[in-house]
Amino acid sequence: MGRMIALLQVDPTVGDLTGNAKRLEQLAGLAAQHGADVGVTTELAISGYPPRDLLLQDEFTRLAQQTATALDVPIPVLVGTPIEAQSSRQLPSNGVVRAGSSDAVSNDGNSHVIARKQLLPTYDVFDEARYFQPDNRSGIARTIAQLDLGVTVCEDAWQAAGLTPSAYSADPVEHLAEWGRQGVQLDATVNLSASPYHADKLSSRIHVCRTASRILNHPFLLANQVGGNDDLLFDGNSLVAWPDGRVVVAPAWQEGVLMVDIDDASKCVWLPSQAKDALCIGRDKIRHVAPDDNGHEYDKELLEDLTDAVVTGLSDYCRKSGISSIVLGLSGGIDSAVAACVAAAAVGPKNVTGIAMPSRHSSQHSIDDARYTAEALGIHFDTIPIDSFHTSVEHSIGEVLSNGHPVASENLQARLRGLLVMAHANAQGHMAIATGNKSELAQGYCTLYGDMAGGYTPLGDLYKMQVYGLADIFNSRANSNSDAPPVNDSTRTKPPSAELAPDQKDEDSLPPYDVLDGILHAHIEEGLDAQDIADKGFDRSTVVEVLTRLEHSEHKRWQMSPAPRVSSRAFGQGWRRPLASRHDWRH
Amino acid sequence: MGRMIALLQVDPTVGDLTGNAKRLEQLAGLAAQHGADVGVTTELAISGYPPRDLLLQDEFTRLAQQTATALDVPIPVLVGTPIEAQSSRQLPSNGVVRAGSSDAVSNDGNSHVIARKQLLPTYDVFDEARYFQPDNRSGIARTIAQLDLGVTVCEDAWQAAGLTPSAYSADPVEHLAEWGRQGVQLDATVNLSASPYHADKLSSRIHVCRTASRILNHPFLLANQVGGNDDLLFDGNSLVAWPDGRVVVAPAWQEGVLMVDIDDASKCVWLPSQAKDALCIGRDKIRHVAPDDNGHEYDKELLEDLTDAVVTGLSDYCRKSGISSIVLGLSGGIDSAVAACVAAAAVGPKNVTGIAMPSRHSSQHSIDDARYTAEALGIHFDTIPIDSFHTSVEHSIGEVLSNGHPVASENLQARLRGLLVMAHANAQGHMAIATGNKSELAQGYCTLYGDMAGGYTPLGDLYKMQVYGLADIFNSRANSNSDAPPVNDSTRTKPPSAELAPDQKDEDSLPPYDVLDGILHAHIEEGLDAQDIADKGFDRSTVVEVLTRLEHSEHKRWQMSPAPRVSSRAFGQGWRRPLASRHDWRH
Repeated sequence: MGRMIALLQVDPTVGDLTGNAKRLEQLAGLAAQHGADVGVTTELAISGYPPRDLLLQDEFTRLAQQTATALDVPIPVLVGTPIEAQSSRQLPSNGVVRAGSSDAVSNDGNSHVIARKQLLPTYDVFDEARYFQPDNRSGIARTIAQLDLGVTVCEDAWQAAGLTPSAYSADPVEHLAEWGRQGVQLDATVNLSASPYHADKLSSRIHVCRTASRILNHPFLLANQVGGNDDLLFDGNSLVAWPDGRVVVAPAWQEGVLMVDIDDASKCVWLPSQAKDALCIGRDKIRHVAPDDNGHEYDKELLEDLTDAVVTGLSDYCRKSGISSIVLGLSGGIDSAVAACVAAAAVGPKNVTGIAMPSRHSSQHSIDDARYTAEALGIHFDTIPIDSFHTSVEHSIGEVLSNGHPVASENLQARLRGLLVMAHANAQGHMAIATGNKSELAQGYCTLYGDMAGGYTPLGDLYKMQVYGLADIFNSRANSNSDAPPVNDSTRTKPPSAELAPDQKDEDSLPPYDVLDGILHAHIEEGLDAQDIADKGFDRSTVVEVLTRLEHSEHKRWQMSPAPRVSSRAFGQGWRRPLASRHDWRH
Repeated sequence: MGRMIALLQVDPTVGDLTGNAKRLEQLAGLAAQHGADVGVTTELAISGYPPRDLLLQDEFTRLAQQTATALDVPIPVLVGTPIEAQSSRQLPSNGVVRAGSSDAVSNDGNSHVIARKQLLPTYDVFDEARYFQPDNRSGIARTIAQLDLGVTVCEDAWQAAGLTPSAYSADPVEHLAEWGRQGVQLDATVNLSASPYHADKLSSRIHVCRTASRILNHPFLLANQVGGNDDLLFDGNSLVAWPDGRVVVAPAWQEGVLMVDIDDASKCVWLPSQAKDALCIGRDKIRHVAPDDNGHEYDKELLEDLTDAVVTGLSDYCRKSGISSIVLGLSGGIDSAVAACVAAAAVGPKNVTGIAMPSRHSSQHSIDDARYTAEALGIHFDTIPIDSFHTSVEHSIGEVLSNGHPVASENLQARLRGLLVMAHANAQGHMAIATGNKSELAQGYCTLYGDMAGGYTPLGDLYKMQVYGLADIFNSRANSNSDAPPVNDSTRTKPPSAELAPDQKDEDSLPPYDVLDGILHAHIEEGLDAQDIADKGFDRSTVVEVLTRLEHSEHKRWQMSPAPRVSSRAFGQGWRRPLASRHDWRH
C-alpha cells in the first residue's frame, strides 16, 4: 500500500457543530480502518457551507474552531473551519486546522492553524468578502504523517485555471509551485472545497485539478462537500488529478471517503459513510478519467444526475430542518406529478400526501391522472373539490370581481388550493411544497400565495422541458424496478393548462415551452440580450414579450421559497435584481 | 457671493437611466440659476443605488457612463456612475465622471473619468465587492470652475473616522491630506454618497465629515441620495463640515439642492426640487450644527423622522414601481390602523381601500374601530364577513382539522382574509400591503400567505412599541390640521389580539410587547446572546423562548415582501441566516 490520503466527502448541516463533528469523526475512523495516513475534510466542514450571517457572531466562530481542533480522530485530519479574527478590526478567516495530532490542544487553538483561504469568491452565490479576511501566505502542512502537503481552500485553485469570472491579483497555486522550484518538494497538494453543483460543473473541476497538478508537478486532491443546504446543492464528486492528466472521481450525492493512493491511481477506493442518515443517492462507483478525456462524457448522464440533484435538495432540506412529511397539490399535470415523484424519493412515499382539488374548469382526466400518479407512487391521496368555495367567495365579492381584471378570479382558485394545502400542512405537521418550474416562475405564470405556496420549490430551477426529462427518468427507474411508471402518457402528452378558465391552455399566454425555454436559457444562463437572442433565430417580438414578462414578475420571485439550484443562474441569491427597476434602460 | 458648490440631493429610480438623467439636469439647472459654480451628485446617481445585478450586464454600465458624461447641464457637474471595466478580466468601477464641460464628449467617455471608489463596503446591506474593482488612486478634480477639489465616494470617507466594522488597508482621506502636506492645496473635498437611513445615522455622518474636514483642513461636503429603493431608504441629509466643526445639514426626505458657500456657512441655502413628482416629506429647513453639538439632539425628533421614513419607503416604492393604489385588511387593531395611515400619506387617501373581514371570533368593536380609522382617514372601506367561508372550508376538511394542530384553523382565517385582499388587488389593480410589524415577524406570530400577503410590508422593520409611537405621530399631525385623529383610543389601548380563537390575546403566546421588544432589540440590533440579555434583567427562560421562536420563524421571513429598513439590523439582506441551521450550536 502506498501513501494514502482520505478525502472526507461530508454532508454537513449548517450551524450544527456537534452533528458535523460526529460525521467527520465517523468518516475519519472509517478512513483510518482502511489504512489512511491522513484525512482531509471539505471547506468549512465543521460549520457547514455556507454559514452566512452565523459568522457575524464571534462566539460561533470561536466554538467552530475549537470543535474542529478537538475532533476525536485516530489519524491527523486537516479540517475546514472558520478561524477567529487575528485582531479586533479584522474579520475571521476561512481556514484549515489540524486535528488528531498527538500534541495537546492549546487553549486558543491557534497553534493548530495550518492555512487561511487567500482568494475569497464574491460573485454569483458567493459572498465571502462579506465574512472573511483574505490571507496572502501559502498553506503548507509539513511532516503530517510523514507527508509534506500544500494546503489550499476552494477558490485558491481556480485562478491558475483562469476559471474565475474576474482575475485576482494573486495565484496561490503559483505561489506553492515556487516552493518546489526553490527545492522544497511537496508530496501532494490538497484543496478543501464547497463547490456548488450545476450542470456540467464537473468538467470545470477536472480542468482546475489537472491544471494545478501540472503546475505543481505532484498529485492535486480536492475534497468537495456533498448534499443540500437550503437552495445550494453540492454534488461531492471529490477528485484527484495527477500531473500526467489521470483523474479519479468519487461518486456524487453520496457521503463517504475517497481513499487516494497518491502513488497508484488504480488503488483508489470509495468507502460509503456508515451513518444511518447518510446521504446515499445514485451510483456509488468511482470513475477513472483518462488524460485525453475532458469529462464532458458525463453530459450524457446529465438527466440522471439532475434527477439525483433535485431529490438530494429536497431530501436534505427536510432532514436538516426536521421535516418528515410532505403535502402537495396534484393537478394531473406534469409539474405536480414530477414534484410528487421527487417528494416520494426524498422522504418516502408513505410520508407524502397528494391532494386533487378540481375546480369547475377541471376535466375528469385531471383527477384521474392525479389519482394514477398517487397510486403508482404509493402516496396518500385525497380529493377536495373547490367549486363550492369558489362560488361562495365569488358571490360575496361579485361586484369587485365583475368590474375587475379577469385574472382575479383565476388567482382566487389557485389561492383556495394553496389555502387547502396549507391547512393540511399546518394540521398534520407536513411541509407543503410548491410545484412550479423555472419557466413559469420566470414569466409570472403562477399565483403568489396560490401554487407558489410552500416551504420549498423542488422544480423551481428546472425549465419546463427539463421537468419532462425528469418524468422520463422517474418512469424508467420505475420500469427497472418493475413498478408502474408514475407519470402516465396522458399527463406527459396533454397540452399544459392551468385549468383556471374554460379551455385554457398555457400556450394561449406563453410561447410553446420549447421556444420559451430556449429564450429564457439564452437570457438567464448565457446573458444574451433581446437582439442577440433574436439573432439566434427566435422571433423578435416573442423575445421582447418574454423578457418583459421576466422583469415584471420579479416581485413574485422575491417571495419565492428556496429552490435547489441546478442551473448556472438560478433565481435568488445569484440573480438579484432591484424590484423597482422595471424600466427599459435601453430606451 | 463666495464660491458655491451645489450638492444635488437626488431621488433616483434604480435602472431608470433616462429618468435619473432628467432629474439631475433639473437639479443642476436650478443650482446654476442660483449661482452655483459646480454641482456634485450622489453616489451612482445615474443608475440609482443599489443597481445590484443590473451591473452584471456590461451594456448597462456602458450606457450609464455614457448618459452621465452626456448630461445636459449649464455648469460642470461631478456625476456618480458605474464606470466600465478597464480590462476584460476586471470588474467595473463605482466612480465619478465630469459632465457639462465645454470639451466635446469623447466616444469612450474615459477622458471624463475623475475618480473611482477605493473602499468597497461588503457588509450589512452592502455587497460592492461583488460588483466593483477597488481603485487605489486619489480622486482629484483640478481647476473645475476655478476650484481644485478632492473627490471621494461614500465609504472612502469612513475609514478615517474609524466607523467601518472592520479596517481597510488604505485610507483615502489620509491620501488626500498628503497632497496638502506636499503643497498641493485643495479648496474642498466632496463625497458622493448613498448612505442608507437608520435611526441615529446622522450623528455618525456628522462625525465622518468633521473628521475628514479636520484632517484635510478644508471644507468636506457630502451629497447623499434621498428616497426609497425597495427595502433600502436614503434620508438625504446632505451636509458640509468645516475644519472648526461647524456643520450645515440639508433636509431629510426631500429632493433638492443644498447650495454650499464654502467660504461662509451662513450663506448655505436649500432649493427644493421643482419636479412635479419630487419627494417632499417633512420639514424643508436646513440645520446649522454648532461645533460642540454632536448631532444627537436629533434623537428628540426620532419618531417624527421615523414616520417620514416609513411613508417615504412606501411612497417611493409605489411611484417607482408604477403602483397608484393600495388595499389592506383593517382589523381594528393598531398595526392595520397605522399601516392605513402610512398608505394614505403615501398615495393619498382616495387611493386606499381598507377591508374589514370579521370572523366568528371578531368583536363588534373591531369592526367599529376599523370603520372609524377608515372614515377619519377618508379612505374607502368595505366589510366582508368570512364566517361562512370559514365554516364551509372547515366542513370539507373537517377530519384533517379536527385530528390536527389547532393552529391550522387559525391560519385558515388569516389566509381567507389574504385571499380576499388579493382578490381586490388583482381585480382593481391595487397593491396589497401586509400590516405586520418586526416583533410579530421575529416571533413567527403571523400567517404566511395570510396577513403576510402583500407586495410591501411598511411596518416590517418597526418593533411593536414603535408602531404605537407612529400612531401618536399620525394623531398629532391630524390634530395640527384639525382633522380627526385616525387611531382612536379603543384601538390604541385594547390588548393586542389576532382574534383567531375565542378570547385570544397576543400575551397568551408572547411576552408583553415592551418585554418582547427589549429582548428582540438586544439580540437583533445589539447582537447580544441569551446570557447577555438575561444579565440586563430579563427573565432567562423568556429570553430563551423568544430567541428560539426567532430562529424557528426564519422560513417565514425568507418569503416576506420588502420592508423599509429603519433599524440598524433589518430582516432581509442584512440578516441572512441559513434556513436549515436551526440547531443550538452552543449545545
